[in-house]
Amino acid sequence: MKEMWAVVKKEPVKGATLSKVAVPCPGAGEVLVKVKAAALCGTDLHVYQWNSWAKQAGVKTPMIMGHEFSGEVVEVGEGVSTVKRGDYVVGETHIPCGTCYQCKNGLQHICGNMVIYGVNTDGCFAEYAKIPEICAKKIPESISPEVGAILEPLGTSLRSCLELQVGGENVVVIGAGPIGLLAVASAKALGAAYITAVDVLPQRLEKALEMGADHVCNPQKEKVAEDIMKITKGVGADSIIDASGNTAAIREGFRYLRKGGQAALIGLPSNLMEIDLGPDVIFKEATIKGIHGRKMFETWTRMENMLENEVLKVREVITHIISLADFAEGFNLIENGEACKVILIPEG
Amino acid sequence: MKEMWAVVKKEPVKGATLSKVAVPCPGAGEVLVKVKAAALCGTDLHVYQWNSWAKQAGVKTPMIMGHEFSGEVVEVGEGVSTVKRGDYVVGETHIPCGTCYQCKNGLQHICGNMVIYGVNTDGCFAEYAKIPEICAKKIPESISPEVGAILEPLGTSLRSCLELQVGGENVVVIGAGPIGLLAVASAKALGAAYITAVDVLPQRLEKALEMGADHVCNPQKEKVAEDIMKITKGVGADSIIDASGNTAAIREGFRYLRKGGQAALIGLPSNLMEIDLGPDVIFKEATIKGIHGRKMFETWTRMENMLENEVLKVREVITHIISLADFAEGFNLIENGEACKVILIPEG
Amino acid sequence: MKEMWAVVKKEPVKGATLSKVAVPCPGAGEVLVKVKAAALCGTDLHVYQWNSWAKQAGVKTPMIMGHEFSGEVVEVGEGVSTVKRGDYVVGETHIPCGTCYQCKNGLQHICGNMVIYGVNTDGCFAEYAKIPEICAKKIPESISPEVGAILEPLGTSLRSCLELQVGGENVVVIGAGPIGLLAVASAKALGAAYITAVDVLPQRLEKALEMGADHVCNPQKEKVAEDIMKITKGVGADSIIDASGNTAAIREGFRYLRKGGQAALIGLPSNLMEIDLGPDVIFKEATIKGIHGRKMFETWTRMENMLENEVLKVREVITHIISLADFAEGFNLIENGEACKVILIPEG
Amino acid sequence: MKEMWAVVKKEPVKGATLSKVAVPCPGAGEVLVKVKAAALCGTDLHVYQWNSWAKQAGVKTPMIMGHEFSGEVVEVGEGVSTVKRGDYVVGETHIPCGTCYQCKNGLQHICGNMVIYGVNTDGCFAEYAKIPEICAKKIPESISPEVGAILEPLGTSLRSCLELQVGGENVVVIGAGPIGLLAVASAKALGAAYITAVDVLPQRLEKALEMGADHVCNPQKEKVAEDIMKITKGVGADSIIDASGNTAAIREGFRYLRKGGQAALIGLPSNLMEIDLGPDVIFKEATIKGIHGRKMFETWTRMENMLENEVLKVREVITHIISLADFAEGFNLIENGEACKVILIPEG
Repeated sequence: MKEMWAVVKKEPVKGATLSKVAVPCPGAGEVLVKVKAAALCGTDLHVYQWNSWAKQAGVKTPMIMGHEFSGEVVEVGEGVSTVKRGDYVVGETHIPCGTCYQCKNGLQHICGNMVIYGVNTDGCFAEYAKIPEICAKKIPESISPEVGAILEPLGTSLRSCLELQVGGENVVVIGAGPIGLLAVASAKALGAAYITAVDVLPQRLEKALEMGADHVCNPQKEKVAEDIMKITKGVGADSIIDASGNTAAIREGFRYLRKGGQAALIGLPSNLMEIDLGPDVIFKEATIKGIHGRKMFETWTRMENMLENEVLKVREVITHIISLADFAEGFNLIENGEACKVILIPEG
Repeated sequence: MKEMWAVVKKEPVKGATLSKVAVPCPGAGEVLVKVKAAALCGTDLHVYQWNSWAKQAGVKTPMIMGHEFSGEVVEVGEGVSTVKRGDYVVGETHIPCGTCYQCKNGLQHICGNMVIYGVNTDGCFAEYAKIPEICAKKIPESISPEVGAILEPLGTSLRSCLELQVGGENVVVIGAGPIGLLAVASAKALGAAYITAVDVLPQRLEKALEMGADHVCNPQKEKVAEDIMKITKGVGADSIIDASGNTAAIREGFRYLRKGGQAALIGLPSNLMEIDLGPDVIFKEATIKGIHGRKMFETWTRMENMLENEVLKVREVITHIISLADFAEGFNLIENGEACKVILIPEG
Repeated sequence: MKEMWAVVKKEPVKGATLSKVAVPCPGAGEVLVKVKAAALCGTDLHVYQWNSWAKQAGVKTPMIMGHEFSGEVVEVGEGVSTVKRGDYVVGETHIPCGTCYQCKNGLQHICGNMVIYGVNTDGCFAEYAKIPEICAKKIPESISPEVGAILEPLGTSLRSCLELQVGGENVVVIGAGPIGLLAVASAKALGAAYITAVDVLPQRLEKALEMGADHVCNPQKEKVAEDIMKITKGVGADSIIDASGNTAAIREGFRYLRKGGQAALIGLPSNLMEIDLGPDVIFKEATIKGIHGRKMFETWTRMENMLENEVLKVREVITHIISLADFAEGFNLIENGEACKVILIPEG
Repeated sequence: MKEMWAVVKKEPVKGATLSKVAVPCPGAGEVLVKVKAAALCGTDLHVYQWNSWAKQAGVKTPMIMGHEFSGEVVEVGEGVSTVKRGDYVVGETHIPCGTCYQCKNGLQHICGNMVIYGVNTDGCFAEYAKIPEICAKKIPESISPEVGAILEPLGTSLRSCLELQVGGENVVVIGAGPIGLLAVASAKALGAAYITAVDVLPQRLEKALEMGADHVCNPQKEKVAEDIMKITKGVGADSIIDASGNTAAIREGFRYLRKGGQAALIGLPSNLMEIDLGPDVIFKEATIKGIHGRKMFETWTRMENMLENEVLKVREVITHIISLADFAEGFNLIENGEACKVILIPEG
């Protein structure tokens, strides 16, 4: 039996271990991928820290961590017909059942029985990763493995901008972590006229400017609503994208959203939000859209087209590329706010 | 100077008075309408009761009450070109400024400087009403004055159904007051496959069935979410229309809305609502739309087409037609839940 | 080897034969359905007559004819997981490949490698029909086998009305054959305010009135454009649905379509159409949508919801129910315009 | 009476004359603008040449030519409230009546009684231009008068890209005259992934590359359909924008449009187009949209936002800036294909 190195969450406590485990064997409808690059995500940090989110998410130990990755197909299970050995793929993390209402009605990305790869299954912080055929998305060779590893979060950000149709708009992105930064880059690529990024960490705001923001705003130093109203000559923002999950910031967003404006919500709050539906939503006829992942595969198609032709530029969100073995350092970098996106590279 | 009878809110205290006042004189861009029928609305009740809503809404006394009405144009002010003496009109209550961002961008119904007719101006519970030309909407003669008087609320309800595209859907209407009942009738007319009305008053639920609901649900007796999930075979409702402003009911609505479903919010809550954005909005990719009034005049066009051809039937929502002089009785009927829609008819 | 009766097109000449053939054996991913009811369609008539359309469509003989049917699953091939013996199903005739651009981008109903069931494969005018799992659509038992057999064409008509959002509109349906009549019924169910059906056969126009048309127009007797302009008070029709494939009628349609109106094209012309893009499309900002089949399976979901709750009524389009053995009579009935929809019932 | 120099079409024959005429006097609801820059358009060339188009368009002589311009308001007529002396404005050429179906239903840019400024009225190739208040669009000072003078055609091009939602798409722009070039720039700004421009003039194709095209194609030298199918890996173009009015090129466009693709038609053909609706529109479910001008004023808002923040760059389309007096040379430059956009500057 072949073995491989993997980052394993062994016990329901803080931490994880680099361990030798068996290389998974792809069953019917599954493919085995040699991981070229994997990316750390906030979700992984939750699992690593074993905080209340992880406890509620139904994570079961022991498990191999990680869900964002790119790699090469090295083996396919029975009945697999759409990918083959040698294909360059990235993982779509939403595993659809194929038979529920949503799967049968064009919404498989929010399948009614959805399983999240790397959260509800073994993941990709390893030399090899097993994934269902439908989630092995072939991508062009011109996209590097490092960028390939962040297509999953990028797709969520890009999709929010596509759905809001931000071209020519005054857009505010709340939260300049990786998802927010990728939303800034997406909005820029799609012709947003003016992009304001909101965050409390100066290094993130700097990165936002680097990735396409026209303006940044730190709510600990400035009054965001006043700032936005001034920028928009009293009209308010056309569109808001929340990538913070910070309920106070979202609430404030509804105040500076213009009458007739739209909000896309991506960030997951850990607490309830109080909202004053009259002034915040009804009188201003706000449209609010929850965004959870990527349309399978309309979003992927547009994302790949844009990356292949360098219309969308996201490389700058990757601040660290380290060895898989150094995963703990990667979590530290994220935890203390030093890193945006950290890429893990398996040896060999 | 000609005089007329009018329902006047004289002081900022509970009540109103039938008084003789001067017939208004239409200024430039204004028209004078002889009122044929006017309708009582929840907003009028707020003003009548002089509750906290009325105090916050900027209502100034003395004022002539009322905003829903139909009638005949009897005089036009200088520069009026689109309506003339003898035209049969109803009042659009959203008075747009014509120059703000919204007015210049196809959203005049939510004008940035909006003045609400009959709330921020003198209204229509009188023999004559003065209204800006742009708000004097000509309607076909085949629509009776009584039905004409409720086109304003009907338009809000119809529009919510048009925006949600309820045809073939499983729809839940929360709140079976006039707006909710008109939403039931609208959803029915637009081909909703199955309509559930939710309310706590048995007489309203009965009326909902009469107006097109397939099923009714009383949250004081039944578990609404369980009921809806059963009806929809575990999928959840396709669309929700809130006409209650009851935050507990809206919250529950987000639980039985299906993944990928939509909610239109019309009812104005008097308190903040707590919402759990992760499960209620983001994971299920809900789309939430605030609805405030009617598109000027796309909604009106479709509404008139439907009424003229009897595709939409709303007459049943009118439970009482009384004399203008009996307005206090009308308010009582609404207050104690006996009436749905009460029409006031000026004498003569 | 079990045998069954089937309507077989044996040679590339006019006609077809009732023959004993082997009951098909479902392979991997296929299901065998005992046919309860099948319906004749214009396409079948083309194949029967072996006209130029049939010659160009790539039909290969010998073949079992027919593509519209309902029935009960009696056997499933290897790997079939979403339907099982005893399920009540109808056939979706668009067989998607599952791997092309369209299949991967939410458009499997117009698959880039589409195979049409019953045209490019053996069909359903037989006691048993073999169909790919993905095309075996389960439907509610409350829908009769006869109506089940016409869901395929109904879906195309309903979808055109859903895409145009005909609620409250003035709609013209060109061509009152089965597809047109089902479009009339669909538009009616979805709240179209006024429906005009256009055809040259009096019996079809009568049927159109029966199925929900408010008005009918025979271009051999009346001037359609003048008629529509009068009905719409000079504005023109909001939406046009062509189910005729008659290029002269479509051309005329663009003349009475209002500025900003929409046209859905379903009927397949046998000749080129001349169009004056300036006045017919550009100056009036017409939107033209080609409609080919049903969204898989969003359209089916709404259609079934509507039928189950009797919001959509289509039974009247079926004028003849005959034995499978009498198929030739069925074709005659259609050919000479006596029948709308003819249902074939296999014996036993 | 003040006089001014103007380019006057005196007789219904080829040519025009620089003449001294009276400065127009703004009536009620009109404003007088001191022209800073005006632009030559293909329509002006038609009028200048007095070809069949001009004869059919209802142009009456004598008239002052020209419809694209920017300038400063110097006088306002009675009742004008939204612009004032000193405002920097450009002219919207679609003069809406304000009362027709389209004007009352959010479509005033395709008013049912539309008058085209500078075609059906005196125009702007003069020192001063009179224009209705509603068509005097204030713009930011950061936009130069030369660029201001081309906002009218730019708006049409930008709008076609906004309506098609070209972000991430493979787009083909047919015709690389000014409208086509501005469509290339707009598509680029809105994140189109890959833009192909099609034209027969090498200098235009060169300009297209300069303005953002990724690829150009000359149908006199290359097979366009083959080229596009190759670029799109056999899928076909996502979106087509026709700015040529060349029916052969449009026909070919429908062949390389992908299944499920969209086409925006702007260019006005001078002849009928033959179209094979089955394969070109219905089987591929193409959506075709006629585009005539700019949404008033949603398109303007986004356009100004983009220009002000330099997200959209269009300056390169202007190849010549000449004196008003040299207008004949300008027409020559356009006629012989040397110029893209020619700007006329009145003296003083």
